[in-house]
Amino acid sequence: MSAQPELERALREALDAKTKPPGSLGRLERLAIELGLAQGSVNPCPDPARIVVFAADHGVASEGVSAFPAEVTAQMVGNFLAGGAAVAVLGRQARAELEVVDVGVAADLSAHEGLVHDKVARGTANLRVRAAMTHEQLDAALAAGRRAVVRAVDAGARTLLLGEMGIGNTTAAAVLTGLLCEAQAEPVTGRGTGVDDRALATKRAVVAAALARVGDLGGDPLECLREVGGFEIGALVGAMLEAPAHRLVVLVDGYIVTAAALLACRLRPSTRRQLVFAHRSAEPGHRLALAALEAEPLLDLELRLGEGSGAVLALPLLRAACTVLAEMATFADAGVSDGG
Amino acid sequence: MSAQPELERALREALDAKTKPPGSLGRLERLAIELGLAQGSVNPCPDPARIVVFAADHGVASEGVSAFPAEVTAQMVGNFLAGGAAVAVLGRQARAELEVVDVGVAADLSAHEGLVHDKVARGTANLRVRAAMTHEQLDAALAAGRRAVVRAVDAGARTLLLGEMGIGNTTAAAVLTGLLCEAQAEPVTGRGTGVDDRALATKRAVVAAALARVGDLGGDPLECLREVGGFEIGALVGAMLEAPAHRLVVLVDGYIVTAAALLACRLRPSTRRQLVFAHRSAEPGHRLALAALEAEPLLDLELRLGEGSGAVLALPLLRAACTVLAEMATFADAGVSDGG
Repeated sequence: MSAQPELERALREALDAKTKPPGSLGRLERLAIELGLAQGSVNPCPDPARIVVFAADHGVASEGVSAFPAEVTAQMVGNFLAGGAAVAVLGRQARAELEVVDVGVAADLSAHEGLVHDKVARGTANLRVRAAMTHEQLDAALAAGRRAVVRAVDAGARTLLLGEMGIGNTTAAAVLTGLLCEAQAEPVTGRGTGVDDRALATKRAVVAAALARVGDLGGDPLECLREVGGFEIGALVGAMLEAPAHRLVVLVDGYIVTAAALLACRLRPSTRRQLVFAHRSAEPGHRLALAALEAEPLLDLELRLGEGSGAVLALPLLRAACTVLAEMATFADAGVSDGG
Repeated sequence: MSAQPELERALREALDAKTKPPGSLGRLERLAIELGLAQGSVNPCPDPARIVVFAADHGVASEGVSAFPAEVTAQMVGNFLAGGAAVAVLGRQARAELEVVDVGVAADLSAHEGLVHDKVARGTANLRVRAAMTHEQLDAALAAGRRAVVRAVDAGARTLLLGEMGIGNTTAAAVLTGLLCEAQAEPVTGRGTGVDDRALATKRAVVAAALARVGDLGGDPLECLREVGGFEIGALVGAMLEAPAHRLVVLVDGYIVTAAALLACRLRPSTRRQLVFAHRSAEPGHRLALAALEAEPLLDLELRLGEGSGAVLALPLLRAACTVLAEMATFADAGVSDGG
């Protein structure tokens, strides 16, 4: 920790020596500093970048909180592997390898080649009425996330783009955000992938019921996670907790991954330094969660798809920030008057 | 023009058939539609993409309106060509060819290899006290912009990223924005690349004087341009006016290029369809200009560098939008339940 202020100063000085007015690349310069601090280097580099999508089902989907039926989780896993889903298409274009991990899909996916099989169980219990996970399941979900980071690091990855798939998981993210930000159901509950007014009312009632049921835990983050789920959120938390040891940059996608980030940072505040927030989504609760993390997302494109799609869209900005540090000429190099 | 509503419907339907909730990619979906309409195609593609930076000097620089001395314009042209400037570094990374055009630098740049020599004159006259350009110079600047488009199209370009370099040119952009948006000096005048409080007061007074001097032209866009300059802004206008004939997408950078876009769209409203706005800059007047154009910029990164740097940063989003249209699976292809 003691080297961080010196490293930050060195990064700032390197940026200010470049042939541009100081600070004129705005957020991109702050991003370069964040990446340098996350990697502990004056020459950060986001590549190789790997996308990891954790997929799992939620018992609460039976309450009618999503615009899509629960079997879509398994269908979308197939679509990720076949390369036709948004995150797969965008990942190819952005030169980021995609790994899909089944941590709890409520279907037998053992025949899928290319899928990482790390299933905790076939979906969580219904968070409205009982704890979504057992203690053993919580541990298994966290461990699945840690294993994904070790695989990524072993393969050379320096940035992890985290995504998720799980019908019903904006409901879980809403409950977690409500618990951790001490908010009521209304400000944290949105339309997810697009529920109508009636389903939104149902979703709010489910979130309110869960907040009432779990709200007296005193804010223990792991207990909140166990009560609410899901397995993919547990894996996301586990992955983030593992990131600092490897100086891995974690590019956080939307509402669900940000809820996991809230949990991870409550559990271990040093995790925060590894996290870059890709975008501000259309979900109203995402603003609350981002504010609690003092996060400054890079994009604001009204995305509400998940999968890690927003993280992939932000990856070129990480590359641009590092390239500015690595390749721009200084005033001295280029013989340009610096106005001083 | 009559085919546009049908094309727009076809693009919307193509997006809605993809394996994602309708509209869940937010601004990226609207971008895909904009690009399709600009290119007149259900399969738009931004590549090859070419950056064109027009460089020129401004007589008004002698008033002390910039944080940098006027000779920096010529020095930065050298830095663009040597590959060390932000737009050069970012352009390489983004696989966009860079062309630099001298349309009016106040120095002899004839020895620079790789520079396009299309100089109108060595800098404009001082817009505070007199017309920045003669009628002949205005025509020459517009023609230089048109020629750049023809070169780009001949080389196969389908997207033009427009940038500029010219010490003093946020002052010209402020006057043009004030004239075209009927605003006073204060809301349109910012710190540019970073003037201090005293220079900002000077800059505001210069903008106010120019608005008073030119304000009785009755809003004739070409006369406004001639009175205010600069040669690079004239070239930007000429390039935009030439774009529709080639169905070329123009990716508009910051405040100066947006002021040129305002002029081009007043002169020929059909130009608007070719324009995509890369970012909302830190300059306060940029908001006014974007609002007048009903533009929805893709990024908001507090950039205030110019050069086309913001346009280059937005290019990956254009590629992403087109890739979603071209490569994502449909619900039918992938066997995914569409929730309907």
